[in-house]
Amino acid sequence: MVTFVLVHGSWHDGSVWNAVVPRLEELGHVAHSPTVAGHGKGVDKAVRHEDCVRSIQRFVVDRDLADVVLVGHSFGGSVIARVAEEIPERVRRLVFWNAFVPRPGTSVEDDLPPHYRELFADLARGSGDNTVMLPFPIWREAFVQDADLDRATAAYRQLSPTPYQPFLDRLDLSRFSRLEIAKSFLNCTDDTALPPGEWGWHPRMSRRLGLHRLVQLPGSHEVVFTRPRLLAEKIVHAGRD
Amino acid sequence: MVTFVLVHGSWHDGSVWNAVVPRLEELGHVAHSPTVAGHGKGVDKAVRHEDCVRSIQRFVVDRDLADVVLVGHSFGGSVIARVAEEIPERVRRLVFWNAFVPRPGTSVEDDLPPHYRELFADLARGSGDNTVMLPFPIWREAFVQDADLDRATAAYRQLSPTPYQPFLDRLDLSRFSRLEIAKSFLNCTDDTALPPGEWGWHPRMSRRLGLHRLVQLPGSHEVVFTRPRLLAEKIVHAGRD
Amino acid sequence: MVTFVLVHGSWHDGSVWNAVVPRLEELGHVAHSPTVAGHGKGVDKAVRHEDCVRSIQRFVVDRDLADVVLVGHSFGGSVIARVAEEIPERVRRLVFWNAFVPRPGTSVEDDLPPHYRELFADLARGSGDNTVMLPFPIWREAFVQDADLDRATAAYRQLSPTPYQPFLDRLDLSRFSRLEIAKSFLNCTDDTALPPGEWGWHPRMSRRLGLHRLVQLPGSHEVVFTRPRLLAEKIVHAGRD
Repeated sequence: MVTFVLVHGSWHDGSVWNAVVPRLEELGHVAHSPTVAGHGKGVDKAVRHEDCVRSIQRFVVDRDLADVVLVGHSFGGSVIARVAEEIPERVRRLVFWNAFVPRPGTSVEDDLPPHYRELFADLARGSGDNTVMLPFPIWREAFVQDADLDRATAAYRQLSPTPYQPFLDRLDLSRFSRLEIAKSFLNCTDDTALPPGEWGWHPRMSRRLGLHRLVQLPGSHEVVFTRPRLLAEKIVHAGRD
Repeated sequence: MVTFVLVHGSWHDGSVWNAVVPRLEELGHVAHSPTVAGHGKGVDKAVRHEDCVRSIQRFVVDRDLADVVLVGHSFGGSVIARVAEEIPERVRRLVFWNAFVPRPGTSVEDDLPPHYRELFADLARGSGDNTVMLPFPIWREAFVQDADLDRATAAYRQLSPTPYQPFLDRLDLSRFSRLEIAKSFLNCTDDTALPPGEWGWHPRMSRRLGLHRLVQLPGSHEVVFTRPRLLAEKIVHAGRD
Repeated sequence: MVTFVLVHGSWHDGSVWNAVVPRLEELGHVAHSPTVAGHGKGVDKAVRHEDCVRSIQRFVVDRDLADVVLVGHSFGGSVIARVAEEIPERVRRLVFWNAFVPRPGTSVEDDLPPHYRELFADLARGSGDNTVMLPFPIWREAFVQDADLDRATAAYRQLSPTPYQPFLDRLDLSRFSRLEIAKSFLNCTDDTALPPGEWGWHPRMSRRLGLHRLVQLPGSHEVVFTRPRLLAEKIVHAGRD
């Protein structure tokens, strides 16, 4: 029995795992799906990356969770890396699912390809509250291309503008590489949210983990909507001892 | 219901889609499979790339087809890119299936690795009619390696020498990047017709599309022979809105 | 009917194929699984690469095997490449399964990423008999990550220290590229025994084969333990004419 804490990415909140959690429970595990500070609908978006980290750290500590497998999706990778630095004694393994693994002293934005950097900066400037909403065409074509249009549209309605400042904040992460915590990288082989190749997720992000376990599945960046049960099963493979 | 126009690659003619079209029809779609000018058996091979483009353009216009999803395989990618420049108002989406996406002002040959460039030039010189026939060992090992020998041999008999000049013609394509037409890249993950890596199909060709939808399936460059029904289903995923 | 000679990699012996051979036989083939000199438990580890080659060469010649498909896994790739140079008249095809394809005049070690080079040198120095035992965490995370912990542990018990000198020996291989023997590369798409990318198996090793047949399957470097029947079926696809 594993205790999973599932940390969503940008534009999402904890409800994105709604079809994953029951399958993890069916398989005999416990799964928590907190919402990261500044994420979700109708909340204050004026957060820094550190607020995102603290919200997950507090979630784990307040419930006194131990031997946790922290799963981070996309932006969530940058969160679990920092949480692991803060409460390493509570973390059994880190699972990065098509996720950012920032280098010490860098920001998530530093790992974005130039066209996203420009787009997000423009969108944040025009937002009025320093947030970025993902344009639907990018969502439909590059994030959730394995859904049909109805499902892609329905899933888009669940999204909310994501706070921009956490993309820009430089993360210390000087302790991360010295953590003696097992690490996995879960890779969706059709993921084009970051463009494959020079700016892609894998192996660009995965190799930064040093010794790690690679688990792969077919599907897009948002396989959480299109194949949640398979995703849950692969999370188990990535998270077991 | 989608109207597909399927554009074959070098050495093939429209009959290569014979097992794909019925599956597309079963799935509720309309599919046309014209033969590109200068391709197929017993026809005049003295064509230029522009003749290839005009033949498909005329096919679409003569039938007054609208909202067409143009699918181009291999060399056919260079054809649909140009057709889309000529009749953008008739094209709903472009699907490049392990296909060339030439850069403006370049030729298909410019995207061939050196060993193919030399081989094709030699074969064209020796052909008597400026055509290239694909040697069987390359066909068997690098194009259709997922077939058994009997099927590979039978499929080889359907091939015909392909006109060489269209490989050499520089394509303007100055309007292509400004087209407001959705684009997909369909990638067979075992395709070695172009060698994986520096000279491979994906992501070398796909990234030239800018924002696009990636759809992948297992199989060789000639999965049209080995898994035509799966190919049809993936064409639907690549071609839908 | 194909006659396969299956050549294992480092830390293994011929028994690693125990679940593969019966499936190959079911499919109508003959399969031999000799142990390479210096490999396995309780044997003299003081061997050079040439001893490894001779042991397989003798195995084939002593049984007067003809039209053999030589399959080499990992380190075994360096062995079958050399065996093919010695007895090309007996070899119908070479199948490199996530295997080393050394360049003429180089060693297997030359193809190892720096962190393995250092680790193996350290382990050999400390071994007392110039062998290297693979540390369990590397085995579990990077070699056999698709097994559960019990199976990974059981498989680890079957391993034995591998002789270090054969990694260091420079291999002539000046005749290899001129051999007129068909070649295949069998690639497990989740294999991280060599880190994906710059130091990975595919396409780094496969491209050195020149014209070859690529066959892929999901799974780790040690899919021989986790999916032996699928591996056998893919070996047949890689090995047929």
